Amino acid sequence: MTQGKEGAALDLKSARILIAGAASLVGSHTAEALLAAGIKEVVLLDNFAFGTPEAIAHLKDDPRVRIVKGDLMRLPDLLAATQGMDGVLHLAAYMTLGFAQSPWEAVDVNLRGAQNMLEACRANKVKKVVFASSNAVYGYGPGIKGALVEDGPFHSAGAPAAAILYGASKIMGEQLCRQYFQKHKLDYVVLRYSTVYGERQHYRAANSLYIMETYDRVRRGERPVLPGDGSDTKHFVNVADVAQANLAAFRSAATDVAVNVSGPEPITTGELVRMVLDYCGSKLQPEIKPDPPGTVRLTSGGAFHIPHDLAGKLIGWQPKIGMKEGIARLLAWREAGLAKQKEAK
Amino acid sequence: MTQGKEGAALDLKSARILIAGAASLVGSHTAEALLAAGIKEVVLLDNFAFGTPEAIAHLKDDPRVRIVKGDLMRLPDLLAATQGMDGVLHLAAYMTLGFAQSPWEAVDVNLRGAQNMLEACRANKVKKVVFASSNAVYGYGPGIKGALVEDGPFHSAGAPAAAILYGASKIMGEQLCRQYFQKHKLDYVVLRYSTVYGERQHYRAANSLYIMETYDRVRRGERPVLPGDGSDTKHFVNVADVAQANLAAFRSAATDVAVNVSGPEPITTGELVRMVLDYCGSKLQPEIKPDPPGTVRLTSGGAFHIPHDLAGKLIGWQPKIGMKEGIARLLAWREAGLAKQKEAK
Repeated sequence: MTQGKEGAALDLKSARILIAGAASLVGSHTAEALLAAGIKEVVLLDNFAFGTPEAIAHLKDDPRVRIVKGDLMRLPDLLAATQGMDGVLHLAAYMTLGFAQSPWEAVDVNLRGAQNMLEACRANKVKKVVFASSNAVYGYGPGIKGALVEDGPFHSAGAPAAAILYGASKIMGEQLCRQYFQKHKLDYVVLRYSTVYGERQHYRAANSLYIMETYDRVRRGERPVLPGDGSDTKHFVNVADVAQANLAAFRSAATDVAVNVSGPEPITTGELVRMVLDYCGSKLQPEIKPDPPGTVRLTSGGAFHIPHDLAGKLIGWQPKIGMKEGIARLLAWREAGLAKQKEAK
Repeated sequence: MTQGKEGAALDLKSARILIAGAASLVGSHTAEALLAAGIKEVVLLDNFAFGTPEAIAHLKDDPRVRIVKGDLMRLPDLLAATQGMDGVLHLAAYMTLGFAQSPWEAVDVNLRGAQNMLEACRANKVKKVVFASSNAVYGYGPGIKGALVEDGPFHSAGAPAAAILYGASKIMGEQLCRQYFQKHKLDYVVLRYSTVYGERQHYRAANSLYIMETYDRVRRGERPVLPGDGSDTKHFVNVADVAQANLAAFRSAATDVAVNVSGPEPITTGELVRMVLDYCGSKLQPEIKPDPPGTVRLTSGGAFHIPHDLAGKLIGWQPKIGMKEGIARLLAWREAGLAKQKEAK
């Protein structure tokens, strides 16, 4: 990945931006941030297979918002939706769970869907694509330790098939962008999100599930459960920071690059549980639960962190929300939701 | 990748085997080897997009050979072709050049095509799939050095987009096999071929092109050209050895494994040129040609080799043809072809 190339830099106040896979955690937060930044128009594209109308319900009355139901597998949908767009944020993808449950659809969306979107952008002369990739391009298992820098390899030994499929599909998606840049001068920035968490996180989603579960146990007065010895590393990034990274990528002149988008610092599961307990003002002690033999977990090979220095250098972005603040925001949102549910009963 | 699992072992004398992508170097040699081993029936499936009728012309009159024109993108073709088959050798794939020139077709064939074939095998209760993978799953560039063992990572820093796409598509193909094994008990062996060369190699193919070019120069009395300093490593494998590896994979009880299939030892480009000069009995000295600045070559990070011990252990195969013998065979075939051309004039 070459560094420091100059391409299209969008002025958001006069830009029209389409978000593919918009009815989602990252999509809805990015749409909000674009509206706050004075965007001219934002098109929210989703096929609503996983995305929900509720995730974007609070945005739909803004006159600058247009919701389009369309499918990545239908190129005509994308040709119509990208017409007149200056930028496209491509979020839509199947993740590990999707590759386990429906590998045909996952291959469709993550590869052909990405190709269709790039082709539509080329045809409609879209100025810049921001492609959502993942730290899954570094893989899993014993090889994951130390600093996961942008030119690092993909580790797969011992990982589940679906996780490897997901990571490799993101590696391919990045390279499809690169080919469109090389062949058609379509500017792009790849953002490799680390584990995204934040308000409006789907309650079933794996990302912040552990935070939520811990919180629920503590609220019920039960000791939180700490898998293994609590030293597992996680590197989260708050969804509000991710939204700002997306904006920064559109605004900057950077092109033909892939950068990490991670939170200020990594955290161990032990520290995470401690933060939830502190938030709740609880004196409970975590219960250490060794993994039963044969457990498959996507663990790392030791302490690791995902540097975001390159994103700072190339798109002028850095994360602002530390884990303590992020957890407080997430749990305050969760509490408000529970209070509302109670009221409704 | 778990080692030592037991699955279906085919008795070749009573087996029917389909080769997908059969009208090719590896396909035609494997068909020959199967016929020599007393196979009951061999079905040669190809869409003849890259494969040529000439590559299998010498086989077509054997009553045990059936040639089927079919396409991996049409599942009904594969359902018909795999009916009654005991084993399937899946060779058909786009390589790096294909991912550069036609990435849509390449994604189709390498991913959806592999999925279609696995689905057809599941539906028709095929006992075993041998999936042709590649040392491209270890990637390219500075990370490629030392022993490339089966659980190693995928390196992509600095590599061309099409090469990364090809390598990642093979990583995904392997994992699609693994999913069919886990979900449907479809036995499979992944063979990661290193650079295949041998007689009937298409003269335009990149694999043994350098051997051919060197030979042609020496025949014309010109000094052979040595790119860089001649220390670049290559690890070839002769196509006759690859054919035997395919047979060994069908015969063995091994399943749910991926093993390297490489020649007896690696070679440097300097040694390769020396062997061609020796074969020709030439006293010419190679001309060292430093790369012009900006040259992109798929070089390694130093001396490397691709061990095949695991293939020995799990499928009882090891390569027999050293580079000296292999080059002699290849060039003898080339000479016979040139003599025939001369006769025809």
